[in-house]
Amino acid sequence: MTLILGLDPGLGTTGWGLIRAEGNRLSHVANGQLKTDSKESLPRRLSHLAAQLDALIADRAPDTAAVEEVFVNKNPQSTLKLGQARGVVLLCAARGGMDVGEYAARLVKKAVVGTGAAEKAQVHAMIQRLLPGAQIAGADAADALAVAITHAHHVASHRSGLV
Amino acid sequence: MTLILGLDPGLGTTGWGLIRAEGNRLSHVANGQLKTDSKESLPRRLSHLAAQLDALIADRAPDTAAVEEVFVNKNPQSTLKLGQARGVVLLCAARGGMDVGEYAARLVKKAVVGTGAAEKAQVHAMIQRLLPGAQIAGADAADALAVAITHAHHVASHRSGLV
Repeated sequence: MTLILGLDPGLGTTGWGLIRAEGNRLSHVANGQLKTDSKESLPRRLSHLAAQLDALIADRAPDTAAVEEVFVNKNPQSTLKLGQARGVVLLCAARGGMDVGEYAARLVKKAVVGTGAAEKAQVHAMIQRLLPGAQIAGADAADALAVAITHAHHVASHRSGLV
Repeated sequence: MTLILGLDPGLGTTGWGLIRAEGNRLSHVANGQLKTDSKESLPRRLSHLAAQLDALIADRAPDTAAVEEVFVNKNPQSTLKLGQARGVVLLCAARGGMDVGEYAARLVKKAVVGTGAAEKAQVHAMIQRLLPGAQIAGADAADALAVAITHAHHVASHRSGLV
């Protein structure tokens, strides 16, 4: 049994999704969204994000983590902001003792829907189907669950020698 | 007396410079460059950067920190990389209990050389003059000292009610 923590980093909202993988069987454990207050200074927001994520990792003790490789935004200021949050999220995962898988957006779509060209809405619908009963906290939590599912497939196919 | 830690974040090399400010008198304490190994994974590099910076902060106990506002690179991948390192650096400073001043590059040049249009070489020469006897570890450490000096001026002029 492997507990996989998917993460979708963002300065304002970081989505997370925790799934359990037993062989090829996946099940939903929990998901949510960590928020920071845009009225606070950047160092404080990063510190608040790290504190929430550290607490989550200490509480749930996931075995491994996964994040999406970044879509580099056309707006450089947005890319910088995302980078700062992503750096903190990767740090928290590494300090929590986890390896972190990184997956391209196409790979995530392919793993969840079966085609790398899937729409976001298809991905979200498919997550509901793959993880029945999951109450999904929002779009960022859904993206986090999607990358967790991708990581589970990746780990399973490596184990069985298919990749 | 205030101990000011200037920081120039980067994934490969983060420059740092520590100065002592007593009223308007500045003196050099120490400077250096924290390196991470490009052969390691990104989470490990960020974790190694944070560990070095946490140790430095614990050892030197600076009162306050300063970083340059970011020059957003034309290459989005570089901006993302810089952002990830910068997020970790800001987090370490915030967790070390410091406020972090952020200063635009123009302001740093103005504080050090007297004009916002100064060349990098002029800035570095002026740091040697302002902090006599300092052995400067490299260009990133020099940039870190420059932002520390800017922060000292800013704090001093706020105290004396000039700004």
